[in-house]
Amino acid sequence: MPENIPQERTVVFVSDGTGITAETLGHSVLSQFEGIKFKQIRIPFIDSEVKAISAKQKINDIAIYDGIKPIVFSTLVNPTINEVVHKANGVFMDLFLKFVEPLENELGVKSTHRIGRSHTISDNEQYKNRIEAINFTLAHDDGQTDKDLAGADVILIGVSRSGKTPTSLYLAMQYGIKAANYPLIPEDFERGELPLALPPFKNKIFGLSISPERLSEIRNERRPGSHYASLENCKKEVKAAEFMMRREGIAWLSSTSKSIEEISTTILQQLNLGSPIY
Amino acid sequence: MPENIPQERTVVFVSDGTGITAETLGHSVLSQFEGIKFKQIRIPFIDSEVKAISAKQKINDIAIYDGIKPIVFSTLVNPTINEVVHKANGVFMDLFLKFVEPLENELGVKSTHRIGRSHTISDNEQYKNRIEAINFTLAHDDGQTDKDLAGADVILIGVSRSGKTPTSLYLAMQYGIKAANYPLIPEDFERGELPLALPPFKNKIFGLSISPERLSEIRNERRPGSHYASLENCKKEVKAAEFMMRREGIAWLSSTSKSIEEISTTILQQLNLGSPIY
Repeated sequence: MPENIPQERTVVFVSDGTGITAETLGHSVLSQFEGIKFKQIRIPFIDSEVKAISAKQKINDIAIYDGIKPIVFSTLVNPTINEVVHKANGVFMDLFLKFVEPLENELGVKSTHRIGRSHTISDNEQYKNRIEAINFTLAHDDGQTDKDLAGADVILIGVSRSGKTPTSLYLAMQYGIKAANYPLIPEDFERGELPLALPPFKNKIFGLSISPERLSEIRNERRPGSHYASLENCKKEVKAAEFMMRREGIAWLSSTSKSIEEISTTILQQLNLGSPIY
Repeated sequence: MPENIPQERTVVFVSDGTGITAETLGHSVLSQFEGIKFKQIRIPFIDSEVKAISAKQKINDIAIYDGIKPIVFSTLVNPTINEVVHKANGVFMDLFLKFVEPLENELGVKSTHRIGRSHTISDNEQYKNRIEAINFTLAHDDGQTDKDLAGADVILIGVSRSGKTPTSLYLAMQYGIKAANYPLIPEDFERGELPLALPPFKNKIFGLSISPERLSEIRNERRPGSHYASLENCKKEVKAAEFMMRREGIAWLSSTSKSIEEISTTILQQLNLGSPIY
């Protein structure tokens, strides 16, 4: 082990495609190390030998500049390209060598070594569905229209600013899920019923709630000092919304301390929805 | 190597968090194998020993049902939990063992083994910026408002249906980038100038173009048989838009055969923007 632990270390993500897999992987690994500042550099689209040489040079330059080898997360699959880049002065975390090669033995087939298989539109049908899901979700944001609700995969409900819009967009973007969302508003609570268009689709409704304190904070950023944002009003709305969801037997979760990804994963799990799209 | 190559194989993504890293990694690895149908199962939020035992059981059940061990992509970081799950009858592709442990030696520090470090709101400030970026991007979709353009990180332009909206949303969602977008419309081409609000922000404008054939296809899905969707009109608009972008010295790319991820990565690269957010 080195005697002097550097406070900063450069991390390079190198890929023949977008580099999104390398970054996701790398970030997850690095999140396990605290007290080190990682400076991140992205080198995407390394899909030729010429580009491989330039990537190698870039990594070497970093090693000289930093005085220490950068950590390199690589998802290069072409052996020739990989060989060139691997000559660089870096500490390699290589997805292909660590996982694809062992899997060849297990599956009893050779891998294709084809570049650009992830995050492309290679599966056209799936890609089209995803764009359609995004369009559907945008058109059905915030109860804008009751049209085509039969085509929705999920309908999110919750008080204003409980996280419905970002969650809907994430579900559409990452999983190709058509997600409509409806706000629960004081008029609904007075009537004591779900928004009018929703009862026929109860089996695909999912609720988001939030702590009144956090809700008041978020609303105050938008409309400071308003009745809408007051803690008192937030408490009232949240209580009424949770009461309604319970009474209607609608599954819901609290978004208070959850990320968009955590909320989305929970919804997929509970409604038994969605294969991932990459 | 097995003598009979199975045509189908179950893949399990197991994680103490959302499982998004495991899925991204796994999908990238599996995309290298053709001719095998992978059935995917997600087991997220395995953050206790009780849940670990149930995950182990699930994997064992699959092995019995399939008559062959499933492939298990795991991002479990807690040693106790990991030990329980690893006793299951699966072929393990373990992120932690393959990358985190070697990195401990390289960095000279022990990893934290803390669960739920990725895809959470552990970095509150960054998470807040991301939600703000999504709100900004939604408010500035399709030239809806000229307000606060100074606050935009990037402004996308292009003819209607060239891919601006999904790209803007992806940039906001994944990278916390405030992305406005403006359509280039026939009126702009007649005036021979960019939309009125844009000239002061030329350094952060990026253009999307598209082949007239593909554009006509997309527009025909929305408004079949219209002048708007006709190949002739699409040719005219695309030509005028590309001419304008060239004349104004605006960097642009063709979205025709590119995924949202590829377009976004190229924009980040060209405008030198954005650290990734997970």
